Amino acid sequence: MTMARLIEYDEASAEIRAVYDDIMATRGTDWINNFWKALANHPPTLRRTWESIKEVMAPGVLDPLTKELVYLAVSVSNGCPYCIASHAAAAKKQGMTAQMLGEVLAVVGMANETNSLANGYRVPVDERFENLF
Amino acid sequence: MTMARLIEYDEASAEIRAVYDDIMATRGTDWINNFWKALANHPPTLRRTWESIKEVMAPGVLDPLTKELVYLAVSVSNGCPYCIASHAAAAKKQGMTAQMLGEVLAVVGMANETNSLANGYRVPVDERFENLF
Amino acid sequence: MTMARLIEYDEASAEIRAVYDDIMATRGTDWINNFWKALANHPPTLRRTWESIKEVMAPGVLDPLTKELVYLAVSVSNGCPYCIASHAAAAKKQGMTAQMLGEVLAVVGMANETNSLANGYRVPVDERFENLF
Amino acid sequence: MTMARLIEYDEASAEIRAVYDDIMATRGTDWINNFWKALANHPPTLRRTWESIKEVMAPGVLDPLTKELVYLAVSVSNGCPYCIASHAAAAKKQGMTAQMLGEVLAVVGMANETNSLANGYRVPVDERFENLF
Amino acid sequence: MTMARLIEYDEASAEIRAVYDDIMATRGTDWINNFWKALANHPPTLRRTWESIKEVMAPGVLDPLTKELVYLAVSVSNGCPYCIASHAAAAKKQGMTAQMLGEVLAVVGMANETNSLANGYRVPVDERFENLF
Amino acid sequence: MTMARLIEYDEASAEIRAVYDDIMATRGTDWINNFWKALANHPPTLRRTWESIKEVMAPGVLDPLTKELVYLAVSVSNGCPYCIASHAAAAKKQGMTAQMLGEVLAVVGMANETNSLANGYRVPVDERFENLF
Repeated sequence: MTMARLIEYDEASAEIRAVYDDIMATRGTDWINNFWKALANHPPTLRRTWESIKEVMAPGVLDPLTKELVYLAVSVSNGCPYCIASHAAAAKKQGMTAQMLGEVLAVVGMANETNSLANGYRVPVDERFENLF
Repeated sequence: MTMARLIEYDEASAEIRAVYDDIMATRGTDWINNFWKALANHPPTLRRTWESIKEVMAPGVLDPLTKELVYLAVSVSNGCPYCIASHAAAAKKQGMTAQMLGEVLAVVGMANETNSLANGYRVPVDERFENLF
Repeated sequence: MTMARLIEYDEASAEIRAVYDDIMATRGTDWINNFWKALANHPPTLRRTWESIKEVMAPGVLDPLTKELVYLAVSVSNGCPYCIASHAAAAKKQGMTAQMLGEVLAVVGMANETNSLANGYRVPVDERFENLF
Repeated sequence: MTMARLIEYDEASAEIRAVYDDIMATRGTDWINNFWKALANHPPTLRRTWESIKEVMAPGVLDPLTKELVYLAVSVSNGCPYCIASHAAAAKKQGMTAQMLGEVLAVVGMANETNSLANGYRVPVDERFENLF
Repeated sequence: MTMARLIEYDEASAEIRAVYDDIMATRGTDWINNFWKALANHPPTLRRTWESIKEVMAPGVLDPLTKELVYLAVSVSNGCPYCIASHAAAAKKQGMTAQMLGEVLAVVGMANETNSLANGYRVPVDERFENLF
Repeated sequence: MTMARLIEYDEASAEIRAVYDDIMATRGTDWINNFWKALANHPPTLRRTWESIKEVMAPGVLDPLTKELVYLAVSVSNGCPYCIASHAAAAKKQGMTAQMLGEVLAVVGMANETNSLANGYRVPVDERFENLF
C-alpha cells in the first residue's frame, strides 16, 4: 500500500541523514514519520520541503498552534488522509484539544458549504471587499 | 455575471428582512453583502446558512480571528474568489494584518504542496497518528 | 480573457462544421456556445467530447433533467464558472425552476460540508455500506 | 484508522442520544452509522449537522431520490470514500438501481472532464447564460 | 471495500469481453486491471471510456511517456489513490524512473502551492498572457 | 479585483529587487509578472517560492517543456485562472504548440473523468500496482 520504499535512518545516505537529524533536533523527537521516509526517495525534494516547512511553520506573527490549525484545516478540506492524521497529531502537540478540533472542523465544513453556495449563485464580489491591503 | 438577482432589502419579503436584520445586528453593520442577497433567492437556505454561520463563528475555545483565518485558508485552498474576498475582509475586521495574511497564505501553500506529495508517494499513516482523541 | 480563438462556424473546417451541425440538430437550436468553439482548436477533442456528451446525456433510466441537475451540481462543487453558467442554462431548458436550483445548491452545500467532516474525523466505512451492488 | 472514538448509544450523553433517537425515528431504522458517532465528539456539530441534513434532504420540489443522487454525485466528484459509500447506500434505499448508478457516474465523469476542458481553454461565458433567474 | 462486483472475464458478457480483448491486445498484456472490471457494471461506460482512453493516450505530438506523466500528475493532484497507483504503473511501463517520479511530484507539489498563492492574492492575469493561441 | 497592491520594481525594497533581478536574469526577460508582484507583499514567501520554483523547474531527468506541461496540467485540473494563463505562456515559451496544448488538455480531461469513475466505484488497487519503486 505504498508507491515507494520508506527509507529508514540506518540505510539512509549522509545527505538524507542530515535532514533526518535536523528534523529530530528541530522537533525535539527521536523518530521520523513516514512522510519524510517517502520523500527521501528524491533527496532534493526531501531537503527543500523540510527547509520550507521549517521556515513557514516557525513562530511569526501567528503562533505555531494557529499555523497547525490552518494546516490541518486545509488538509481536511483537501481530503488527504495522511496529512489529516499527521497534522492533527502536530496540532495536538501544540495544544489542540478535542474541543478545538471540533470547532476547526465545524469551520472547515461551513467554509466548504458556503464556498459551493457562492460559486453556485455566481455571486459578484462586493466593491468593499476589493484592495483590502 | 451572475446566476440570479441580488435581492435588496427594500424589495425583500418579511422572512428575508428578518434574516437581513439579524445579520446587521449581529455584525454591527448597516449593509448586507452580496452573498446573502443571492441566497435570498431560496429563503430556507438563507435562514439555515445564516443560523449555522452565526453559531459556528461565535467565540468558542477558538477566538473569532482564528476562526476567520481558518475560513479564509479553506476558501483560498478551494479557489473560491468570492469567499476569498469576503473572508479576507472578515478576517481583517477581526484584526488580520497584511503580515498575518502573508503567513496564512504561506501555510496554505505548504499544505497544498505537501498534501500532493503525501498522496503521490501514497504514504501510509504512522501508527502513532492513530486514535488521537 | 481566453486561451485560444473561438472558432466561428463561417471559418470552420468541414470536420468542425459537421460537429457543429450535429450539436445544433440534436439540441434543436441555431447557435453554438463558446465551449465548442474553443474545443474546435483541437478537432479530435471536439468530436470525441461531443459524441460522449451526446451519449451520456441522452435519456436513459434517468431523465434528462435529473442528468442536468447532477451535471450542474458537480460543476458547482468544482467551482467551474463557465460550466455552472452553461449547465444551469441547460438544466433550465429541461425544466429546472429557481426553486429547484435552490434545492440543488442546498444539497451541494451540505454534501461539501459533510464530506469535509467525514474526512476530518477519518470516519471508517460501516460494514453495511460495503458491496452494495 | 480513525481520528476519534466512535461514541456508541449506550455511552452517549442525553444530548447525543436525543439526536440519535431523532435520526433513527426519521429514517425508520434501529442503528446509527459511524458518521454520526464520530460527530458526537462535538455535540453542537452533531446537532446542527443533523438538523440541516434533515431539512435539506426532506421532500421538496425535488424528490428524495434525486436529492440523494446529487449528494452522491458531489461525494464521488470530491473523492470522499466514506461519503460515497454512505450516500450510495442512502440512494439505493431511495430506489437507485445499479443501472442508475452507472448513469450517474457517467455524468459525473463527463462533468469533471468538461470542467477541466472549459477551464483549460479559459472559455468566456456566453451572454445568453447570464442572469438566468 | 468496493461499491460493486469486479466482473471477471469468465463471467463477462460478449459485449464486455470484446472490450477486455481489445484492452489486452492494445496493451500487449494478458490481464485486466480492476478499473475495467468495475466499469463493466455499466457496459456503455466501459466501452466509451476505453475508446476515449485509447484515442487520447495514443502517440501524437506528445509521446506516450509524457502523456502518462501528465495523467499521473493530475491523479496525484486530485488525490485519487487507485489512479495514482495505476498510472504510476503505466508511466513506469513507458519508461518512468524513480528519479522522474521524484521530479514529477516536485512539480505537482509546486503547482499546488503556487495555485493557492495566486488564488489567495487574487492575482490579475497579465495582459501578455492573454490570447496565446 | 485584487487582494493586495502589486509591488512594482521602482517602489520595491532592496530585498524584493534582488529577487526580481534574479527572476529576470534566470528567465532572460526584462519584466516581472503579477504573481511575483503580489507575493512581494510578504518578502519571505517571495524569496522562498522563487528559489523553490527555480530549483524544481531547472532541467533534470525531465526537460523544461515536460515540466511546464505537467505544471499547466495541474493548474488546469485545479481551475486556477491565473496559473493556467501564466503556465500556458511559460509552456509556449518552451515550445508548446496549439496541438500540444490540445493533447495535454485531452489527457487532463480524461484523467479527471476516470479519477471520478475510479472513486465512484471504489475500485481496489490491484496487487501488481503496489511497491513500484
